[in-house]
Amino acid sequence: MDEQHFTEPDAATDAFKQAFRRHAAGVAAVTALADGGRPVGFTATSVASLAAAPPLVTFNMARVSSAWPAMVVGNRVAIHTLGPRTRHLAVKLAADNAVRFEGDHWAPGPHGVPILAGVTSWMLGEIIEVHPVYENAVIVVRIEVGELGDEDEALLYHERAYQRPVAL
Amino acid sequence: MDEQHFTEPDAATDAFKQAFRRHAAGVAAVTALADGGRPVGFTATSVASLAAAPPLVTFNMARVSSAWPAMVVGNRVAIHTLGPRTRHLAVKLAADNAVRFEGDHWAPGPHGVPILAGVTSWMLGEIIEVHPVYENAVIVVRIEVGELGDEDEALLYHERAYQRPVAL
Repeated sequence: MDEQHFTEPDAATDAFKQAFRRHAAGVAAVTALADGGRPVGFTATSVASLAAAPPLVTFNMARVSSAWPAMVVGNRVAIHTLGPRTRHLAVKLAADNAVRFEGDHWAPGPHGVPILAGVTSWMLGEIIEVHPVYENAVIVVRIEVGELGDEDEALLYHERAYQRPVAL
Repeated sequence: MDEQHFTEPDAATDAFKQAFRRHAAGVAAVTALADGGRPVGFTATSVASLAAAPPLVTFNMARVSSAWPAMVVGNRVAIHTLGPRTRHLAVKLAADNAVRFEGDHWAPGPHGVPILAGVTSWMLGEIIEVHPVYENAVIVVRIEVGELGDEDEALLYHERAYQRPVAL
């Protein structure tokens, strides 16, 4: 029996988990409309800038997500930046997907895409690429429009808790 | 003259810039070997988890980067998490690429890939996908090995400055 076959995958997963425990991430919320105009969305710690000209953003997601059916090239998504005062939105969009849009914390925006209330900003754009990788996917969005929202600090996720940034 | 053609692209770029000013990002450093064993690397604020099983990581980059020639499927890259005590590495790997590897702040690791000294962790893996998008690219890495490093807080980039996270 070659023990390496059993230990190596664990070493890789351990390395990955250790590294991400040392890494802090900004918290965003992604929303879209799925088939039949059903609002879907989730809390994302993977939102990243890809380019400024044209303005391109990426995020990663699981293909088992309730929002996956909306991740189709040509469909629109909204990406909201959150702050400590909208931490409840991060909690709500990470909880049971059946009740994520129950309540008055959102309203339809451009193309009917749900825009969350009280966020520090939102930007909306067209999905231009979807790259499935194993059970997950990388989504590329070309930003078209957006709005600056309420003043607040940035919301972080680090060491399994919501945090905020301070100067060094 | 249709004025919309002139104002719309600006509105999109403005929305993108405003949103990312409200978003905080963890700071990482990516290193690799390019042609002829030349060490290359850069400071990245786009490192994100894609999956835990198998462990997959993404980052975004400009295709004009000096590290771009190393971003080939099958090549190895190291992704280091940084802290306030290794802020100098973030500064060094964002400065003039001709001198990023001049000094004793790194040593060859697995596959000869540069491993930076004093980091809070590093993980190394194989590039499994490269997706060019306009002048930039999304890189997908499957993690194989890594090491936990020195204890330190996480390093953030927010509001054009290095910062650190604190509890809410």
